[in-house]
Amino acid sequence: MDVEKVFHMNGGIGVTSYAENSSLQKRGSDMVKHLTTGTVLEIFLSTTPKSLGIADLGCSSGHNSLTIIKDIVEAVQGTSSNMLHPTPEFRVYLNDLPTNDFNSIFKALPEFYKGFEVEKNGGGPSIFIGGYAGSFYRRLFPNNCLHFVYSSYSLHWLSRELVVGGRMVLILLGRESQDHVDRGNSFFWELLSRSFAELVSKGEVEKEKLDSYEVHFYAPSKNEIEDEVRKEGSFNVDRIEMIEIERDHDKDGRSYGTAIAMTVRAIQESMICHHFGEGILDNLFEIYGRMVDEEMAEEEIRPITFAVVLRKV
Amino acid sequence: MDVEKVFHMNGGIGVTSYAENSSLQKRGSDMVKHLTTGTVLEIFLSTTPKSLGIADLGCSSGHNSLTIIKDIVEAVQGTSSNMLHPTPEFRVYLNDLPTNDFNSIFKALPEFYKGFEVEKNGGGPSIFIGGYAGSFYRRLFPNNCLHFVYSSYSLHWLSRELVVGGRMVLILLGRESQDHVDRGNSFFWELLSRSFAELVSKGEVEKEKLDSYEVHFYAPSKNEIEDEVRKEGSFNVDRIEMIEIERDHDKDGRSYGTAIAMTVRAIQESMICHHFGEGILDNLFEIYGRMVDEEMAEEEIRPITFAVVLRKV
Repeated sequence: MDVEKVFHMNGGIGVTSYAENSSLQKRGSDMVKHLTTGTVLEIFLSTTPKSLGIADLGCSSGHNSLTIIKDIVEAVQGTSSNMLHPTPEFRVYLNDLPTNDFNSIFKALPEFYKGFEVEKNGGGPSIFIGGYAGSFYRRLFPNNCLHFVYSSYSLHWLSRELVVGGRMVLILLGRESQDHVDRGNSFFWELLSRSFAELVSKGEVEKEKLDSYEVHFYAPSKNEIEDEVRKEGSFNVDRIEMIEIERDHDKDGRSYGTAIAMTVRAIQESMICHHFGEGILDNLFEIYGRMVDEEMAEEEIRPITFAVVLRKV
Repeated sequence: MDVEKVFHMNGGIGVTSYAENSSLQKRGSDMVKHLTTGTVLEIFLSTTPKSLGIADLGCSSGHNSLTIIKDIVEAVQGTSSNMLHPTPEFRVYLNDLPTNDFNSIFKALPEFYKGFEVEKNGGGPSIFIGGYAGSFYRRLFPNNCLHFVYSSYSLHWLSRELVVGGRMVLILLGRESQDHVDRGNSFFWELLSRSFAELVSKGEVEKEKLDSYEVHFYAPSKNEIEDEVRKEGSFNVDRIEMIEIERDHDKDGRSYGTAIAMTVRAIQESMICHHFGEGILDNLFEIYGRMVDEEMAEEEIRPITFAVVLRKV
């Protein structure tokens, strides 16, 4: 499967869209907001550039990306104002695969800019936001244009390398133990696999079709992250935090399993649909949601998130 | 009407899409290709930057924009190779309103990049293409990042100013005479107005509804362009060429009137739909296409296009 052409979060703003089913990712970003804004302030204070370049690798199509940009701009604006230093201009590079729904982000921009103008009585900061479509495993941006790179839950989708190439905050799913099989993120994959098996046993999916379905996903351990950064050589690890996203009450009163199923669907649908056709989606994710609830009733599943701060050497 | 929120070319790749109904605009760009590439080469040769910044203001969603970028990159690449000078990196800024269908452009990028890699045995030029959503009557890009600005058939949609603010090639609809009413572009508006009147007389549109429909369009004369550039003060006019787009045989054997109607529909539909609802579209543009054919049978309509090359003073 050509991931670059097929894989994308569910676009738009409908019931199964990523925009409506990314509150888990939002909570992850919120929990590491102190690291994100802290790291940007560090690089801003040490270099005080007139123009600050910020990239979000894997921005997807919901509000999450613009929320982070807003946090960063406000933090830098506040700090430069305290220091009686002019606010820099912000060059923001939003990246995702060419199949991502950039249109939804762009439609939200007039309101986003307006928020800053209103707060600042019409004289908001200069923010220039561009969409850059392509895989971040290739070159996307001009030389020496970035001070800060942010990437939230986007590194797992190609198994080639862990680290790409100023300062970076990477948020990624990980695992606690050295063992590759635990009751964390990989267990969600195990349950998805069991849901497919149930569809096979019901005759709704052919076994051969399932056997030929290949998706790469990798949730590294803390040691593996440190090893990869060392091997790559361009960065030092400033900090690694392990976080667990708290479960919160679902806004629509759905079960935890259903909420997880909708989240996973918003991420995986494009690839599953490409290989199996859209006919199986509703059934598959109903089974999946039920399995997650059944397993949670027996024993907790603890998906781990790492927040990593890297500094270019 | 909030043009910035409502106005956009018809997205996607369907029968009524801009992508499928912009061959007139394509012919316009093709006819001034020598001016476009010539002007870029001039600025490249006089400054030989390592990184060349190019913006297309009003890029819309079809192939036209990427075709022009390809022409420019090939011209610069060829010239730098002849001079044994390294090819610069290309920073390309594609701009249109936030409602534009950027997704279609982004989906075409992998093929676009691949074209260069294949031609160059895998070592193509560095081209970084970003989508920037917003009105070009406000600031969109960082300071001092552009060497060349291109804008094709996009300046007429706000009547405020003619000239925005290196080197610019502007392609715009104009008029031959000093008189505002001639059998050129304004006559196409006259016919659209008559088509609406026919819907009113048939009771399909309320007269009040039509009276409250306000759209700004301006096709300047050569003198007016020169006056505005002089008044604005930042640019000299290097050259103005008046061109007439040749009619060519319609690929689907449609009449000229029908082809014009589809072109105008791909541009105007978003605004008409917003004000009148989509129910009138098919009828309106059928009447319009018929009127254009009837008028052309009586006497030629000669829509004029100007290509203007401006140089920053």
